[in-house]
Amino acid sequence: VNGPSPPAVVGSGRVRALGTAFEYPEGRAFLVSSPGVMDLHGAAIRSALSFRSFVEILVDDREIAKTLRGVEGILEAAIASEVRRDDFVVAFGGGVVSDMAGFAASVLLRGIRWYGVPTTLLAMADAAIGGKTGVDHPAAKNQIGTFHFPSGVLVDPDFLETLPERAYRSGLAEIYKALLVGDAEGAEEMRGRLEELARLRGARRALLRAIAVKERIVREDPFESDRRRVLNFGHTLGHALETAGAYRDLAHGEAVALGMAAALLLSSERSGYPEPDARAQAAELSRFARAGRAPELCPSRDAIRAALRRDKKNTAGRAPAVLLSRPGAPVIADISDEEWLDAAERILLPTGL
Amino acid sequence: VNGPSPPAVVGSGRVRALGTAFEYPEGRAFLVSSPGVMDLHGAAIRSALSFRSFVEILVDDREIAKTLRGVEGILEAAIASEVRRDDFVVAFGGGVVSDMAGFAASVLLRGIRWYGVPTTLLAMADAAIGGKTGVDHPAAKNQIGTFHFPSGVLVDPDFLETLPERAYRSGLAEIYKALLVGDAEGAEEMRGRLEELARLRGARRALLRAIAVKERIVREDPFESDRRRVLNFGHTLGHALETAGAYRDLAHGEAVALGMAAALLLSSERSGYPEPDARAQAAELSRFARAGRAPELCPSRDAIRAALRRDKKNTAGRAPAVLLSRPGAPVIADISDEEWLDAAERILLPTGL
Repeated sequence: VNGPSPPAVVGSGRVRALGTAFEYPEGRAFLVSSPGVMDLHGAAIRSALSFRSFVEILVDDREIAKTLRGVEGILEAAIASEVRRDDFVVAFGGGVVSDMAGFAASVLLRGIRWYGVPTTLLAMADAAIGGKTGVDHPAAKNQIGTFHFPSGVLVDPDFLETLPERAYRSGLAEIYKALLVGDAEGAEEMRGRLEELARLRGARRALLRAIAVKERIVREDPFESDRRRVLNFGHTLGHALETAGAYRDLAHGEAVALGMAAALLLSSERSGYPEPDARAQAAELSRFARAGRAPELCPSRDAIRAALRRDKKNTAGRAPAVLLSRPGAPVIADISDEEWLDAAERILLPTGL
Repeated sequence: VNGPSPPAVVGSGRVRALGTAFEYPEGRAFLVSSPGVMDLHGAAIRSALSFRSFVEILVDDREIAKTLRGVEGILEAAIASEVRRDDFVVAFGGGVVSDMAGFAASVLLRGIRWYGVPTTLLAMADAAIGGKTGVDHPAAKNQIGTFHFPSGVLVDPDFLETLPERAYRSGLAEIYKALLVGDAEGAEEMRGRLEELARLRGARRALLRAIAVKERIVREDPFESDRRRVLNFGHTLGHALETAGAYRDLAHGEAVALGMAAALLLSSERSGYPEPDARAQAAELSRFARAGRAPELCPSRDAIRAALRRDKKNTAGRAPAVLLSRPGAPVIADISDEEWLDAAERILLPTGL
């Protein structure tokens, strides 16, 4: 009933074959998306869903709207349309849409099927894959949710053509993370080319490899009891920087890039990662994440420390520090807050690297 | 991760051994209960939970409060107390408490463990067993929820000593339902003795058998794809009578008793149930459910028809009519609304049986 999804179906223009890409239950589709995404790609998804009668449910897809109230809106709409057990949900959008739509599917009639059609690079590489659904609580990110694996994920890179640059860069950072953690060869191919890939929008090959890494790790440990935690590489400090307000509007992937830079420096000191490589890759990630933004917005050491502590409580010890002993070889390590802060300073100060 | 629970632990005074009855994760207990239950049995459960540090979360346990908002209250309290993955929930109360506490457990940190300590006969026989969790929506009962099986259920019949009479009778009806569906010998033992068992509070033996039936059927079909639906015996018409307002304050079990009476009459006509037995048992159930209440509150045929139709939509075809070919031998049948209404009239009219 609830295990890892089949491998994602990937390909340019593949959304047109959505009807034959997967098996579906016999009922209607509940298309969950946002006004912005439907403005850009409504015609494509409506045409792709013409194989079945469907109901559109639009949600606010800003991170701040990823709440239980937002999910309640989806549930209300589905119940008002007399949802049945053989209906299914199609999540069409970025990570906020798939997190909320998947969560709604998991609690409607004690669980109906859902399918993901991600439209952002981040959602294609990460959010739509792996069955984690949920919402944020004012006091804590991602504390409310379920594991409810999509019955199919269709990745059509054509949707990326309309993606804003910052969002594309953010996705690139998550892709690099997946490869550093689980695909040394893929990581080597990306190394030194982050800016170029962002400029050329050239991440399709790396995206495929990142999806494969994520799918493999999720298959090994679907419910994150152990091995799956390595996907948190870069997220310990990254998330603390995000919540400490490092740089105005720091995107998630940018924060993760900074977190990976710090984790690479610590990896060279603590887990045998080759030092020259660590320094070079950390420098590239740090430059890529900051992309010319003003260093004066750098948060104080105290603010980052407070955010690290808050996160540690909020993740309830489930997000241990992940380092690398070499590309593709993650290790769990015990890193103190002060060690993270020292590494953060080296990353964040303009003269640090 | 999510499969049928181990068999319930049953015994007088067994709540005192709660700490050794099951394996628990290493964290704290979140005790979810209601003010009324804690007034009566707070000392017993606090003492039983003294093996672990615990946090009390009280909810309104009326059916009308079984909403997403109610569950949100549990989630807020758990998050405010910094819930961790190795914490667990203990649901202490009747069916509303276990439905909401189990649902909260299923979405906290994508699922933490829960344990049931039911205090009502209905919850002991039915609600706490089987992993169905959830809340009602204004437009539809039980449309929002999950399957999240408790890691242990402890049934201590001593809690029944304080149960109001109507609630005890309601539980007796659900017990009789389980036996009619899955334990012919147990059903025969109860037959003709409903009033006596209610007066003597003598259902312990029947309760044990009912729990065994429910556990067996749930093991065979945990996620209610097929076989488990037979547990809906008596619920098609029963629920329609409940929502049509048949008799003021009709208790759930009383409505189910009336529904079983009608289903037995239809079983003799449609599926070979011996007619004299059907008539006698239906008469007993009907008398037991009405227990001297005023026949003038009987709802109109139109009101019951409307409720049947609404339910059919709301249960989305998942609650088919269940008849019996003999005690212990349920069959799924196709019964029209008018057939249910004819049977309802025979049950509800004072001269009907």
